[in-house]
Amino acid sequence: MRRVAIIGAGMTTFGEHWEQGYRDLAVEAGVRALEDAGISGDKIDAGFMGTMASGRLIGQEHIGALLADYMGLNPIPITRVEGACASGSLALRQGIMAVGSGMHDVVVVGGIEKMTDLGVNTVSDILGGAGDQEWELFLGATFPAIYALMAKRHMLDYKTTEEMMASVAVKNHKNGAKNKYAQFQKEISIADVLKSKEIASPLKVLDCSPITDGAAAVILVPLDQAHSFTKKPIEIIASAQASDALALHSRESMTGLKATQIAGKKAFEMAKLTPKDIDFAEIHDCFTIAEIMAIEDLGFFKKGQGGPASLEGRTAIGGEIPTNTSGGLKACGHPVGATGIKQAIEAVWQLRGQAEGRQVKDAHIGLTQNVGGSGATAVVHIYKNE
Amino acid sequence: MRRVAIIGAGMTTFGEHWEQGYRDLAVEAGVRALEDAGISGDKIDAGFMGTMASGRLIGQEHIGALLADYMGLNPIPITRVEGACASGSLALRQGIMAVGSGMHDVVVVGGIEKMTDLGVNTVSDILGGAGDQEWELFLGATFPAIYALMAKRHMLDYKTTEEMMASVAVKNHKNGAKNKYAQFQKEISIADVLKSKEIASPLKVLDCSPITDGAAAVILVPLDQAHSFTKKPIEIIASAQASDALALHSRESMTGLKATQIAGKKAFEMAKLTPKDIDFAEIHDCFTIAEIMAIEDLGFFKKGQGGPASLEGRTAIGGEIPTNTSGGLKACGHPVGATGIKQAIEAVWQLRGQAEGRQVKDAHIGLTQNVGGSGATAVVHIYKNE
Repeated sequence: MRRVAIIGAGMTTFGEHWEQGYRDLAVEAGVRALEDAGISGDKIDAGFMGTMASGRLIGQEHIGALLADYMGLNPIPITRVEGACASGSLALRQGIMAVGSGMHDVVVVGGIEKMTDLGVNTVSDILGGAGDQEWELFLGATFPAIYALMAKRHMLDYKTTEEMMASVAVKNHKNGAKNKYAQFQKEISIADVLKSKEIASPLKVLDCSPITDGAAAVILVPLDQAHSFTKKPIEIIASAQASDALALHSRESMTGLKATQIAGKKAFEMAKLTPKDIDFAEIHDCFTIAEIMAIEDLGFFKKGQGGPASLEGRTAIGGEIPTNTSGGLKACGHPVGATGIKQAIEAVWQLRGQAEGRQVKDAHIGLTQNVGGSGATAVVHIYKNE
Repeated sequence: MRRVAIIGAGMTTFGEHWEQGYRDLAVEAGVRALEDAGISGDKIDAGFMGTMASGRLIGQEHIGALLADYMGLNPIPITRVEGACASGSLALRQGIMAVGSGMHDVVVVGGIEKMTDLGVNTVSDILGGAGDQEWELFLGATFPAIYALMAKRHMLDYKTTEEMMASVAVKNHKNGAKNKYAQFQKEISIADVLKSKEIASPLKVLDCSPITDGAAAVILVPLDQAHSFTKKPIEIIASAQASDALALHSRESMTGLKATQIAGKKAFEMAKLTPKDIDFAEIHDCFTIAEIMAIEDLGFFKKGQGGPASLEGRTAIGGEIPTNTSGGLKACGHPVGATGIKQAIEAVWQLRGQAEGRQVKDAHIGLTQNVGGSGATAVVHIYKNE
């Protein structure tokens, strides 16, 4: 397989975009990625777009061809990929295989979701389609409820506290305050989180990622062609994906995501690296407990140590493994299809030294972990600068 | 890129499956494909599933991981791919790239749709999401209406008649009557079509493909490993995809699909073949006019000659280019995500000499053409036996 590199990255701000439609957001992100790569659209061979629920959110399927048209890229093929909240990272994987196989040379990979035009209960129901519709959603188990069960069990088994979970939100807001693309650019305190409205005990509203509009895109080429486009190509040195049961009650454990463990292990094998080699990680913190489980599942901390590690600042910028320097899903917002690509973009910016006030010093290797639903899909990518 | 072959193929019957759910249909097709390949599930590395609108049809997104679980394939990655009615062929393309790139060795590619549980108007609205929701569906243009516009224009420009269109349905029903997987296994006459209920003038109900439940799956491996699995591997020698505007009013022409023309041209280039080399073709006949346009767009007949050629039997089994030997979408039914894979399976059966009463004599090279929406996505594959 040919080695693959990112030569361009661009995104919209994440937030409530009342003045822009789905198509506008996609075009804005795509144009910014092209500008960043310094190329025009006619160089693009193919594209992949991650979007979870455009059918239910905006009544539109078939968004691959739609966006090819609106981006002025017709007649190149653009294909939609969906794996719930991991849709963006799945699109990235298809892009890697398209370039890696030699089927295509210059590929745009995007992710997008337009979520804020519908009421919160409707959106919550639609997002529930990422879990098991027949065995979970139909019986009332929306995502906050499912993650609350995981949090309760993690607290019971490992003495994880609400304060530890809150510390994840505090860190991610602190990082997000330095990211001009983030939905929430303000710092919060542990007390703010603990006193915020309860959503599904023990999770409060400030433990939860918000509903968000946004789009993000990157441009891929074969590594051996990358230097003709940019001085700082970012190579993707591992791409791994794993599946687990959609329904929580069918899983082996409720205190970790087996799909993350397997995808992480495979990614480290592909990259011939260990968790100690990673300089920073973008983690799928749809809820604060999710980040705590992920940093354990990926081997950055021992099982049960994710909570204390977060509270002690070991995942802050300057700590052992800076986590969610972008602000994560918590502060950036979580336009589900776009999140995986936003994670890749943060990796690119960190590895180029362009992360402004949140730059990780001497960053050479970064990791992203993107989750679909409550963990039925997990995707891990590892990135390297030269 | 590594050369890729199909070593197994299996499908459910297409029709109204009141006793089976979405998951059941997928598992049945997957198991049949595995049995046909003579392998067990633990040999599978990865999967791709084409489905258009599971979110709106059954409230369930994230069906990749769901089906990995229900097929007993966890933790392997399964990814959903969507491009409206071309979703199945797009999944096949991802499977080809996954095997071609070396990322995976043994890949299951499926397609599925469960459509008959909702009322016809609801389903028609959901299918409308394959066209331009803002500029077509919102204004009332469902698919029969859009294809009726194309038919009217084709009649005006090329003297195509309602009888010529009806002859497509008659041929496809004749072929479908010999396919035990087809939804409609009975022959009809031109008079039957002409007197059937008008849907959107000039299209009558017997010019239209039906609403259908069904699933289909194939197993891919690198060609150089294929002989360890089967004596009759079927190589996929070309895979091409192209895009066009979703909205009909934004296209250059209404009497042909530019995306089919481009994808066809690319596929012939990849295979180093011309239309004359093709022994049979599975064509996206969602409406009879669509088959007439496609056999022109692919170069089997000159522009404007598709209608007369159909009426004269030149696309029948025994004719110059046997078209839709399976019965096509018209007689097999059109469970949208499954259609592209069903086309591939018909190609496999023809090229293995297993097409029973509808076998094309001395079939060595077959072509499939799968369309998303009213032509915004087109995918062409070419297959060869040894």
